[in-house]
Amino acid sequence: MKNKKPLILVVNDDGIEAKGIRNLGEVAREFGRVVMIAPGNGRSGMSHAITFASPLRLRRLHYSDDFEIYKTNGTPVDAVKLALRHLLKDQQVDLLVSGINQGANTSVSVFYSATVAAAVEGCLCGIPSIAFSLVDYKRDCDFELAKAAVRKIIPTVLKKGLPPNICLNVNIPNIAVDDAKGMKITRQAKNYWHEDLDARTDPANNPYFWMSGCLQEIDKKRDTDMWAVKHNYISIHPLKVDWTDFEMIQKLRKWNIKL
Amino acid sequence: MKNKKPLILVVNDDGIEAKGIRNLGEVAREFGRVVMIAPGNGRSGMSHAITFASPLRLRRLHYSDDFEIYKTNGTPVDAVKLALRHLLKDQQVDLLVSGINQGANTSVSVFYSATVAAAVEGCLCGIPSIAFSLVDYKRDCDFELAKAAVRKIIPTVLKKGLPPNICLNVNIPNIAVDDAKGMKITRQAKNYWHEDLDARTDPANNPYFWMSGCLQEIDKKRDTDMWAVKHNYISIHPLKVDWTDFEMIQKLRKWNIKL
Repeated sequence: MKNKKPLILVVNDDGIEAKGIRNLGEVAREFGRVVMIAPGNGRSGMSHAITFASPLRLRRLHYSDDFEIYKTNGTPVDAVKLALRHLLKDQQVDLLVSGINQGANTSVSVFYSATVAAAVEGCLCGIPSIAFSLVDYKRDCDFELAKAAVRKIIPTVLKKGLPPNICLNVNIPNIAVDDAKGMKITRQAKNYWHEDLDARTDPANNPYFWMSGCLQEIDKKRDTDMWAVKHNYISIHPLKVDWTDFEMIQKLRKWNIKL
Repeated sequence: MKNKKPLILVVNDDGIEAKGIRNLGEVAREFGRVVMIAPGNGRSGMSHAITFASPLRLRRLHYSDDFEIYKTNGTPVDAVKLALRHLLKDQQVDLLVSGINQGANTSVSVFYSATVAAAVEGCLCGIPSIAFSLVDYKRDCDFELAKAAVRKIIPTVLKKGLPPNICLNVNIPNIAVDDAKGMKITRQAKNYWHEDLDARTDPANNPYFWMSGCLQEIDKKRDTDMWAVKHNYISIHPLKVDWTDFEMIQKLRKWNIKL
Protein backbone atom coordinates (compact mmCIF):
# COMPACT_ATOMS: atom_id res chain seq x y z
CA MET A 1 0.00 0.00 0.00
CA LYS A 2 1.33 3.41 -0.84
CA ASN A 3 1.78 6.12 1.74
CA LYS A 4 -1.43 8.06 1.24
CA LYS A 5 -2.12 11.62 2.33
CA PRO A 6 -4.38 11.81 5.39
CA LEU A 7 -8.04 12.39 4.53
CA ILE A 8 -9.41 15.36 6.49
CA LEU A 9 -13.11 16.20 6.72
CA VAL A 10 -13.75 19.92 7.29
CA VAL A 11 -17.18 21.11 8.50
CA ASN A 12 -18.71 24.10 10.29
CA ASP A 13 -21.98 25.65 11.41
CA ASP A 14 -21.52 29.19 10.11
CA GLY A 15 -22.14 28.02 6.54
CA ILE A 16 -19.99 27.10 3.55
CA GLU A 17 -19.27 30.75 2.67
CA ALA A 18 -17.98 31.68 6.13
CA LYS A 19 -14.40 32.88 6.40
CA GLY A 20 -13.77 30.48 9.26
CA ILE A 21 -14.23 27.29 7.24
CA ARG A 22 -12.18 28.67 4.36
CA ASN A 23 -9.31 29.49 6.72
CA LEU A 24 -9.61 26.07 8.37
CA GLY A 25 -9.62 24.33 5.00
CA GLU A 26 -6.57 26.28 3.90
CA VAL A 27 -4.54 25.07 6.88
CA ALA A 28 -5.95 21.52 6.71
CA ARG A 29 -4.73 21.26 3.08
CA GLU A 30 -1.17 21.62 4.31
CA PHE A 31 -1.60 18.23 6.00
CA GLY A 32 -3.80 16.17 3.71
CA ARG A 33 -6.55 15.71 1.19
CA VAL A 34 -9.52 17.86 2.25
CA VAL A 35 -13.24 17.25 1.84
CA MET A 36 -15.21 20.29 3.01
CA ILE A 37 -18.96 20.15 3.62
CA ALA A 38 -21.18 22.66 5.39
CA PRO A 39 -24.71 24.03 5.48
CA GLY A 40 -25.52 26.49 2.68
CA ASN A 41 -26.60 28.98 5.33
CA GLY A 42 -25.47 29.47 8.91
CA ARG A 43 -26.91 26.95 11.38
CA SER A 44 -25.48 28.21 14.65
CA GLY A 45 -27.15 27.03 17.86
CA MET A 46 -28.39 23.82 16.21
CA SER A 47 -26.46 21.60 18.63
CA HIS A 48 -26.65 17.93 17.62
CA ALA A 49 -29.88 18.33 15.61
CA ILE A 50 -30.45 15.98 12.67
CA THR A 51 -32.94 16.00 9.80
CA PHE A 52 -35.04 12.93 9.11
CA ALA A 53 -38.54 14.33 8.57
CA SER A 54 -37.59 16.23 5.40
CA PRO A 55 -35.20 15.44 2.54
CA LEU A 56 -31.52 16.31 2.59
CA ARG A 57 -29.92 18.01 -0.39
CA LEU A 58 -26.25 17.89 -1.29
CA ARG A 59 -24.48 19.95 -3.92
CA ARG A 60 -20.87 19.85 -5.10
CA LEU A 61 -19.27 23.27 -5.44
CA HIS A 62 -15.68 22.31 -6.24
CA TYR A 63 -13.79 19.18 -7.13
CA SER A 64 -10.11 18.47 -7.58
CA ASP A 65 -7.81 15.60 -6.63
CA ASP A 66 -7.09 16.75 -3.12
CA PHE A 67 -9.82 19.29 -2.40
CA GLU A 68 -13.60 19.00 -2.62
CA ILE A 69 -16.31 21.40 -1.43
CA TYR A 70 -20.00 20.57 -0.84
CA LYS A 71 -22.99 22.33 0.62
CA THR A 72 -26.15 20.88 2.13
CA ASN A 73 -29.51 22.14 3.38
CA GLY A 74 -28.99 20.02 6.50
CA THR A 75 -27.55 20.76 9.90
CA PRO A 76 -23.82 20.48 10.67
CA VAL A 77 -24.36 16.97 12.08
CA ASP A 78 -26.29 16.04 8.91
CA ALA A 79 -23.27 17.32 6.95
CA VAL A 80 -20.98 14.94 8.85
CA LYS A 81 -23.36 12.05 8.17
CA LEU A 82 -23.67 12.91 4.47
CA ALA A 83 -19.88 12.99 4.23
CA LEU A 84 -19.17 9.78 6.12
CA ARG A 85 -22.10 7.67 4.90
CA HIS A 86 -22.29 8.88 1.30
CA LEU A 87 -19.42 11.00 -0.07
CA LEU A 88 -16.64 9.11 1.72
CA LYS A 89 -18.37 5.79 2.22
CA ASP A 90 -15.77 3.02 2.57
CA GLN A 91 -12.91 5.53 2.85
CA GLN A 92 -10.97 5.98 6.05
CA VAL A 93 -11.30 9.52 7.35
CA ASP A 94 -8.23 10.35 9.43
CA LEU A 95 -9.40 13.56 11.05
CA LEU A 96 -12.49 15.75 11.35
CA VAL A 97 -12.07 19.46 12.02
CA SER A 98 -15.03 21.76 12.64
CA GLY A 99 -15.02 25.56 12.47
CA ILE A 100 -13.34 27.94 12.71
CA ASN A 101 -16.49 29.17 14.44
CA GLN A 102 -16.89 32.89 14.99
CA GLY A 103 -17.81 33.23 18.64
CA ALA A 104 -16.75 31.43 21.80
CA ASN A 105 -17.77 27.84 22.41
CA THR A 106 -16.75 27.71 26.04
CA SER A 107 -18.66 26.74 29.19
CA VAL A 108 -22.38 26.09 28.62
CA SER A 109 -22.20 27.41 25.04
CA VAL A 110 -20.80 23.96 24.25
CA PHE A 111 -24.27 22.43 24.76
CA TYR A 112 -25.85 24.67 22.10
CA SER A 113 -22.98 24.71 19.62
CA ALA A 114 -23.29 22.87 16.32
CA THR A 115 -19.58 23.44 15.70
CA VAL A 116 -18.86 21.29 18.74
CA ALA A 117 -21.69 18.84 17.92
CA ALA A 118 -20.14 18.16 14.51
CA ALA A 119 -16.92 17.14 16.28
CA VAL A 120 -18.91 15.00 18.73
CA GLU A 121 -20.56 13.28 15.75
CA GLY A 122 -17.14 12.59 14.23
CA CYS A 123 -16.04 11.13 17.55
CA LEU A 124 -19.16 8.90 17.66
CA CYS A 125 -18.05 7.60 14.24
CA GLY A 126 -14.59 6.75 15.58
CA ILE A 127 -12.75 9.66 13.93
CA PRO A 128 -10.33 11.90 15.85
CA SER A 129 -12.29 15.17 15.89
CA ILE A 130 -11.58 18.77 16.86
CA ALA A 131 -13.81 21.85 17.07
CA PHE A 132 -12.17 25.26 16.66
CA SER A 133 -13.77 28.55 17.70
CA LEU A 134 -12.43 32.10 17.60
CA VAL A 135 -13.78 34.41 20.29
CA ASP A 136 -14.73 37.15 17.84
CA TYR A 137 -18.07 37.79 16.10
CA LYS A 138 -16.82 40.60 13.85
CA ARG A 139 -17.07 40.17 10.09
CA ASP A 140 -13.48 41.35 9.55
CA CYS A 141 -11.92 39.45 12.42
CA ASP A 142 -8.29 38.34 12.34
CA PHE A 143 -7.82 34.57 11.90
CA GLU A 144 -4.01 34.58 12.22
CA LEU A 145 -3.76 33.25 15.77
CA ALA A 146 -6.53 30.72 15.09
CA LYS A 147 -4.65 29.48 12.02
CA ALA A 148 -1.41 29.24 13.99
CA ALA A 149 -3.21 27.11 16.60
CA VAL A 150 -4.81 24.88 13.95
CA ARG A 151 -1.39 24.47 12.30
CA LYS A 152 0.04 23.06 15.56
CA ILE A 153 -2.93 20.99 16.71
CA ILE A 154 -3.81 19.18 13.45
CA PRO A 155 -0.43 17.42 12.99
CA THR A 156 -0.27 16.56 16.70
CA VAL A 157 -3.66 14.83 16.62
CA LEU A 158 -2.90 13.17 13.25
CA LYS A 159 0.22 11.71 14.88
CA LYS A 160 -1.11 10.82 18.34
CA GLY A 161 -4.79 10.18 17.63
CA LEU A 162 -7.43 10.59 20.33
CA PRO A 163 -8.91 7.96 22.66
CA PRO A 164 -12.40 6.63 21.83
CA ASN A 165 -15.22 8.87 23.08
CA ILE A 166 -13.03 11.95 23.45
CA CYS A 167 -12.86 14.92 21.10
CA LEU A 168 -11.19 18.31 21.53
CA ASN A 169 -12.90 21.67 21.84
CA VAL A 170 -10.43 24.45 21.06
CA ASN A 171 -11.15 28.13 21.70
CA ILE A 172 -8.85 30.88 20.48
CA PRO A 173 -8.80 34.38 21.96
CA ASN A 174 -9.28 37.44 19.78
CA ILE A 175 -5.71 38.75 19.96
CA ALA A 176 -2.63 39.08 17.77
CA VAL A 177 -0.30 36.07 17.46
CA ASP A 178 2.44 37.85 19.42
CA ASP A 179 0.12 38.51 22.36
CA ALA A 180 -0.85 34.85 22.84
CA LYS A 181 0.54 33.20 25.96
CA GLY A 182 0.36 29.64 24.59
CA MET A 183 -1.96 26.65 24.86
CA LYS A 184 -3.79 25.66 28.05
CA ILE A 185 -5.57 22.34 28.70
CA THR A 186 -8.85 23.25 30.39
CA ARG A 187 -12.16 22.04 31.75
CA GLN A 188 -15.61 23.32 30.75
CA ALA A 189 -16.49 26.27 33.05
CA LYS A 190 -19.67 25.77 35.08
CA ASN A 191 -21.35 29.03 34.19
CA TYR A 192 -24.83 29.66 32.90
CA TRP A 193 -26.46 31.59 30.12
CA HIS A 194 -28.87 34.22 31.33
CA GLU A 195 -31.52 34.76 28.69
CA ASP A 196 -33.28 37.99 28.04
CA LEU A 197 -36.48 37.37 26.16
CA ASP A 198 -37.07 40.62 24.34
CA ALA A 199 -40.88 40.76 24.01
CA ARG A 200 -42.24 42.70 21.02
CA THR A 201 -45.48 43.05 19.10
CA ASP A 202 -45.72 42.42 15.35
CA PRO A 203 -47.70 44.63 12.90
CA ALA A 204 -50.71 42.32 13.34
CA ASN A 205 -50.55 43.00 17.08
CA ASN A 206 -49.36 39.50 18.00
CA PRO A 207 -46.59 39.10 20.57
CA TYR A 208 -43.23 37.55 19.75
CA PHE A 209 -39.86 37.18 21.44
CA TRP A 210 -36.22 37.53 20.47
CA MET A 211 -33.93 35.35 22.52
CA SER A 212 -30.74 37.01 23.62
CA GLY A 213 -28.70 37.13 26.79
CA CYS A 214 -25.25 36.84 28.21
CA LEU A 215 -23.09 34.27 29.93
CA GLN A 216 -23.03 34.70 33.72
CA GLU A 217 -19.59 34.00 35.07
CA ILE A 218 -19.82 32.32 38.45
CA ASP A 219 -17.08 29.71 38.00
CA LYS A 220 -14.01 31.94 38.25
CA LYS A 221 -11.33 29.27 38.76
CA ARG A 222 -8.18 29.36 36.65
CA ASP A 223 -8.47 25.91 35.08
CA THR A 224 -11.50 26.65 32.88
CA ASP A 225 -11.91 27.26 29.15
CA MET A 226 -13.39 30.71 29.83
CA TRP A 227 -10.53 31.77 32.08
CA ALA A 228 -7.97 30.64 29.50
CA VAL A 229 -9.32 32.66 26.57
CA LYS A 230 -9.92 35.69 28.78
CA HIS A 231 -6.26 35.56 29.78
CA ASN A 232 -4.84 35.22 26.26
CA TYR A 233 -4.40 31.45 26.19
CA ILE A 234 -5.68 29.08 23.54
CA SER A 235 -8.01 26.71 25.42
CA ILE A 236 -7.96 22.99 24.60
CA HIS A 237 -10.83 21.26 26.36
CA PRO A 238 -11.07 17.44 26.17
CA LEU A 239 -14.76 16.66 25.73
CA LYS A 240 -16.14 13.33 26.89
CA VAL A 241 -18.70 11.78 24.55
CA ASP A 242 -20.27 9.52 27.18
CA TRP A 243 -22.75 11.19 29.44
CA THR A 244 -23.10 8.61 32.18
CA ASP A 245 -22.35 9.74 35.73
CA PHE A 246 -20.88 6.58 37.23
CA GLU A 247 -20.82 7.85 40.83
CA MET A 248 -24.52 8.63 40.59
CA ILE A 249 -25.22 5.07 39.46
CA GLN A 250 -24.06 3.86 42.89
CA LYS A 251 -26.12 6.50 44.72
CA LEU A 252 -29.28 5.81 42.71
CA ARG A 253 -29.04 2.09 43.40
CA LYS A 254 -29.34 2.91 47.11
CA TRP A 255 -32.56 4.85 46.45
CA ASN A 256 -34.08 1.46 45.70
CA ILE A 257 -37.04 2.75 43.66
CA LYS A 258 -39.68 0.04 43.21
CA LEU A 259 -42.42 -0.11 40.61
CA MET B 1 -44.97 30.65 54.44
CA LYS B 2 -47.69 28.21 53.57
CA ASN B 3 -47.02 24.72 52.37
CA LYS B 4 -47.30 25.23 48.61
CA LYS B 5 -47.83 22.56 46.00
CA PRO B 6 -44.66 21.77 44.04
CA LEU B 7 -44.46 23.56 40.68
CA ILE B 8 -43.78 21.07 37.88
CA LEU B 9 -42.78 22.08 34.35
CA VAL B 10 -43.83 19.53 31.72
CA VAL B 11 -42.27 19.63 28.24
CA ASN B 12 -41.71 17.30 25.28
CA ASP B 13 -40.43 17.11 21.72
CA ASP B 14 -43.31 15.22 20.09
CA GLY B 15 -45.49 18.35 20.22
CA ILE B 16 -48.24 19.65 22.50
CA GLU B 17 -50.88 17.35 21.01
CA ALA B 18 -48.88 14.14 21.57
CA LYS B 19 -50.38 11.51 23.84
CA GLY B 20 -47.11 11.23 25.74
CA ILE B 21 -47.16 14.76 27.16
CA ARG B 22 -50.83 14.50 28.04
CA ASN B 23 -50.19 11.27 29.97
CA LEU B 24 -47.14 12.81 31.66
CA GLY B 25 -49.11 15.93 32.62
CA GLU B 26 -51.93 13.80 34.02
CA VAL B 27 -49.56 11.99 36.39
CA ALA B 28 -47.58 15.15 37.25
CA ARG B 29 -50.85 16.82 38.37
CA GLU B 30 -51.18 14.21 41.12
CA PHE B 31 -48.06 15.76 42.68
CA GLY B 32 -48.27 19.49 42.04
CA ARG B 33 -49.25 22.50 40.00
CA VAL B 34 -48.41 21.83 36.35
CA VAL B 35 -47.24 24.21 33.62
CA MET B 36 -47.05 22.39 30.30
CA ILE B 37 -45.27 23.86 27.29
CA ALA B 38 -44.26 22.19 24.04
CA PRO B 39 -43.69 22.84 20.35
CA GLY B 40 -46.86 23.13 18.29
CA ASN B 41 -45.50 20.42 16.00
CA GLY B 42 -43.14 17.55 16.67
CA ARG B 43 -39.46 18.54 16.92
CA SER B 44 -37.81 15.16 17.40
CA GLY B 45 -34.08 14.92 16.70
CA MET B 46 -33.54 18.61 17.50
CA SER B 47 -31.14 17.85 20.35
CA HIS B 48 -30.20 21.02 22.28
CA ALA B 49 -31.01 23.39 19.37
CA ILE B 50 -32.14 26.92 20.21
CA THR B 51 -33.71 29.68 18.13
CA PHE B 52 -32.18 33.14 18.15
CA ALA B 53 -32.14 34.11 14.47
CA SER B 54 -35.94 34.17 14.16
CA PRO B 55 -38.71 35.23 16.55
CA LEU B 56 -40.26 32.89 19.08
CA ARG B 57 -44.02 32.68 19.44
CA LEU B 58 -45.90 31.56 22.54
CA ARG B 59 -49.60 30.84 22.82
CA ARG B 60 -51.70 29.91 25.84
CA LEU B 61 -54.09 27.04 25.20
CA HIS B 62 -55.46 26.48 28.70
CA TYR B 63 -55.34 28.23 32.05
CA SER B 64 -56.59 27.26 35.48
CA ASP B 65 -55.23 27.61 39.00
CA ASP B 66 -53.12 24.50 38.96
CA PHE B 67 -52.83 23.63 35.27
CA GLU B 68 -51.62 25.70 32.31
CA ILE B 69 -50.87 24.66 28.73
CA TYR B 70 -48.80 26.60 26.18
CA LYS B 71 -47.45 25.96 22.72
CA THR B 72 -44.50 27.56 20.94
CA ASN B 73 -42.98 27.54 17.47
CA GLY B 74 -39.58 26.99 19.10
CA THR B 75 -37.59 23.88 19.89
CA PRO B 76 -38.04 21.90 23.12
CA VAL B 77 -35.06 23.74 24.67
CA ASP B 78 -36.61 27.07 23.60
CA ALA B 79 -39.80 25.92 25.34
CA VAL B 80 -37.89 25.38 28.58
CA LYS B 81 -36.32 28.84 28.27
CA LEU B 82 -39.67 30.52 27.51
CA ALA B 83 -41.15 28.83 30.58
CA LEU B 84 -38.32 29.61 32.99
CA ARG B 85 -37.40 33.09 31.77
CA HIS B 86 -40.85 34.40 30.91
CA LEU B 87 -43.90 32.41 32.06
CA LEU B 88 -42.46 31.39 35.42
CA LYS B 89 -39.94 34.17 35.89
CA ASP B 90 -39.20 34.63 39.60
CA GLN B 91 -41.08 31.44 40.53
CA GLN B 92 -39.27 28.42 41.91
CA VAL B 93 -39.75 25.43 39.63
CA ASP B 94 -39.41 22.27 41.71
CA LEU B 95 -39.20 19.71 38.92
CA LEU B 96 -38.96 19.47 35.15
CA VAL B 97 -40.27 16.37 33.39
CA SER B 98 -39.86 15.83 29.65
CA GLY B 99 -41.76 13.33 27.52
CA ILE B 100 -43.22 10.82 27.54
CA ASN B 101 -41.35 10.45 24.27
CA GLN B 102 -42.51 7.80 21.83
CA GLY B 103 -39.36 5.93 20.89
CA ALA B 104 -36.26 4.86 22.81
CA ASN B 105 -33.75 7.44 24.00
CA THR B 106 -31.04 4.99 24.94
CA SER B 107 -27.37 4.75 23.92
CA VAL B 108 -26.32 7.24 21.22
CA SER B 109 -29.94 8.29 20.60
CA VAL B 110 -29.45 10.43 23.70
CA PHE B 111 -27.19 12.80 21.72
CA TYR B 112 -29.91 13.52 19.13
CA SER B 113 -32.90 13.57 21.47
CA ALA B 114 -34.66 16.83 22.23
CA THR B 115 -36.65 15.07 24.97
CA VAL B 116 -33.38 14.47 26.79
CA ALA B 117 -31.99 17.92 25.84
CA ALA B 118 -34.99 19.60 27.49
CA ALA B 119 -34.10 17.79 30.74
CA VAL B 120 -30.44 18.78 30.31
CA GLU B 121 -31.56 22.41 29.92
CA GLY B 122 -33.62 22.16 33.12
CA CYS B 123 -30.55 20.75 34.87
CA LEU B 124 -28.42 23.65 33.56
CA CYS B 125 -30.98 25.97 35.18
CA GLY B 126 -30.60 24.18 38.53
CA ILE B 127 -33.91 22.28 38.39
CA PRO B 128 -34.17 18.54 39.13
CA SER B 129 -35.02 17.22 35.67
CA ILE B 130 -36.12 13.88 34.22
CA ALA B 131 -36.65 12.70 30.63
CA PHE B 132 -39.11 9.84 30.06
CA SER B 133 -39.26 7.75 26.88
CA LEU B 134 -41.43 4.79 25.96
CA VAL B 135 -39.85 2.30 23.58
CA ASP B 136 -42.84 2.27 21.22
CA TYR B 137 -43.49 4.36 18.10
CA LYS B 138 -47.04 3.16 17.53
CA ARG B 139 -49.86 5.69 17.56
CA ASP B 140 -52.03 3.52 19.82
CA CYS B 141 -49.29 2.45 22.21
CA ASP B 142 -50.01 1.59 25.82
CA PHE B 143 -48.78 4.20 28.36
CA GLU B 144 -49.76 2.25 31.49
CA LEU B 145 -46.29 1.01 32.46
CA ALA B 146 -44.77 4.42 31.62
CA LYS B 147 -47.34 6.12 33.84
CA ALA B 148 -46.65 3.66 36.66
CA ALA B 149 -42.93 4.46 36.39
CA VAL B 150 -43.55 8.23 36.33
CA ARG B 151 -45.83 7.87 39.37
CA LYS B 152 -42.96 6.31 41.36
CA ILE B 153 -40.09 8.44 40.08
CA ILE B 154 -41.65 11.92 40.37
CA PRO B 155 -42.30 11.81 44.14
CA THR B 156 -38.90 10.21 44.77
CA VAL B 157 -37.07 13.02 42.96
CA LEU B 158 -39.32 15.70 44.51
CA LYS B 159 -38.31 14.33 47.92
CA LYS B 160 -34.62 13.58 47.36
CA GLY B 161 -33.70 16.14 44.68
CA LEU B 162 -30.80 15.55 42.29
CA PRO B 163 -27.18 16.70 42.56
CA PRO B 164 -26.12 19.69 40.44
CA ASN B 165 -25.21 18.77 36.86
CA ILE B 166 -27.05 15.45 36.92
CA CYS B 167 -30.42 14.68 35.36
CA LEU B 168 -32.18 11.38 34.81
CA ASN B 169 -32.94 9.70 31.50
CA VAL B 170 -35.67 7.10 31.96
CA ASN B 171 -36.63 4.55 29.28
CA ILE B 172 -39.65 2.31 29.62
CA PRO B 173 -40.08 -0.94 27.67
CA ASN B 174 -43.15 -1.55 25.56
CA ILE B 175 -44.78 -4.20 27.76
CA ALA B 176 -47.73 -4.61 30.12
CA VAL B 177 -47.33 -3.46 33.73
CA ASP B 178 -47.45 -7.06 34.99
CA ASP B 179 -44.58 -8.11 32.71
CA ALA B 180 -42.17 -5.45 34.00
CA LYS B 181 -39.27 -6.73 36.07
CA GLY B 182 -38.70 -3.46 37.94
CA MET B 183 -36.33 -0.50 37.72
CA LYS B 184 -32.64 -0.78 36.79
CA ILE B 185 -29.98 1.93 37.20
CA THR B 186 -27.95 1.89 33.99
CA ARG B 187 -25.18 3.47 31.96
CA GLN B 188 -25.48 4.76 28.38
CA ALA B 189 -24.67 1.86 26.01
CA LYS B 190 -21.73 2.52 23.68
CA ASN B 191 -23.44 1.59 20.43
CA TYR B 192 -23.67 3.51 17.20
CA TRP B 193 -26.32 4.56 14.76
CA HIS B 194 -25.76 3.19 11.30
CA GLU B 195 -27.31 5.55 8.79
CA ASP B 196 -28.76 4.54 5.51
CA LEU B 197 -29.00 7.51 3.18
CA ASP B 198 -31.82 6.60 0.86
CA ALA B 199 -30.90 8.46 -2.36
CA ARG B 200 -33.83 9.45 -4.60
CA THR B 201 -34.52 11.82 -7.48
CA ASP B 202 -37.25 14.48 -7.34
CA PRO B 203 -39.65 15.27 -10.26
CA ALA B 204 -37.23 18.02 -11.44
CA ASN B 205 -34.51 15.37 -11.65
CA ASN B 206 -32.53 16.67 -8.66
CA PRO B 207 -31.12 14.20 -6.14
CA TYR B 208 -32.17 14.16 -2.49
CA PHE B 209 -31.71 11.87 0.51
CA TRP B 210 -33.85 10.50 3.30
CA MET B 211 -31.88 9.77 6.41
CA SER B 212 -32.78 6.53 8.11
CA GLY B 213 -30.90 3.71 9.75
CA CYS B 214 -30.72 1.50 12.77
CA LEU B 215 -28.82 1.26 16.01
CA GLN B 216 -25.92 -1.20 15.85
CA GLU B 217 -25.63 -3.10 19.09
CA ILE B 218 -21.97 -3.78 19.86
CA ASP B 219 -22.01 -3.03 23.60
CA LYS B 220 -23.84 -6.08 24.86
CA LYS B 221 -23.07 -5.82 28.58
CA ARG B 222 -25.86 -6.15 31.12
CA ASP B 223 -25.45 -2.77 32.83
CA THR B 224 -26.62 -0.62 29.90
CA ASP B 225 -29.84 1.28 29.20
CA MET B 226 -30.41 -0.77 26.03
CA TRP B 227 -29.97 -4.10 27.80
CA ALA B 228 -32.40 -3.05 30.53
CA VAL B 229 -35.32 -2.13 28.27
CA LYS B 230 -34.72 -5.18 26.07
CA HIS B 231 -35.03 -7.36 29.15
CA ASN B 232 -38.22 -5.79 30.49
CA TYR B 233 -36.67 -3.38 33.00
CA ILE B 234 -37.34 0.34 33.27
CA SER B 235 -33.94 1.95 32.70
CA ILE B 236 -32.88 4.93 34.85
CA HIS B 237 -29.69 6.45 33.47
CA PRO B 238 -28.00 9.26 35.44
CA LEU B 239 -26.80 11.75 32.83
CA LYS B 240 -23.85 14.01 33.60
CA VAL B 241 -24.24 17.58 32.34
CA ASP B 242 -20.51 18.36 32.36
CA TRP B 243 -18.60 17.10 29.37
CA THR B 244 -15.04 17.45 30.56
CA ASP B 245 -12.88 14.34 30.56
CA PHE B 246 -10.65 14.94 33.57
CA GLU B 247 -8.31 12.01 32.91
CA MET B 248 -7.65 13.33 29.42
CA ILE B 249 -6.71 16.72 30.86
CA GLN B 250 -3.70 15.06 32.51
CA LYS B 251 -2.75 13.19 29.33
CA LEU B 252 -3.06 16.26 27.11
CA ARG B 253 -0.83 18.30 29.43
CA LYS B 254 1.93 15.77 28.73
CA TRP B 255 1.53 16.32 24.97
CA ASN B 256 2.99 19.77 25.64
CA ILE B 257 1.66 21.40 22.46
CA LYS B 258 3.41 24.73 21.82
CA LEU B 259 2.23 27.59 19.65
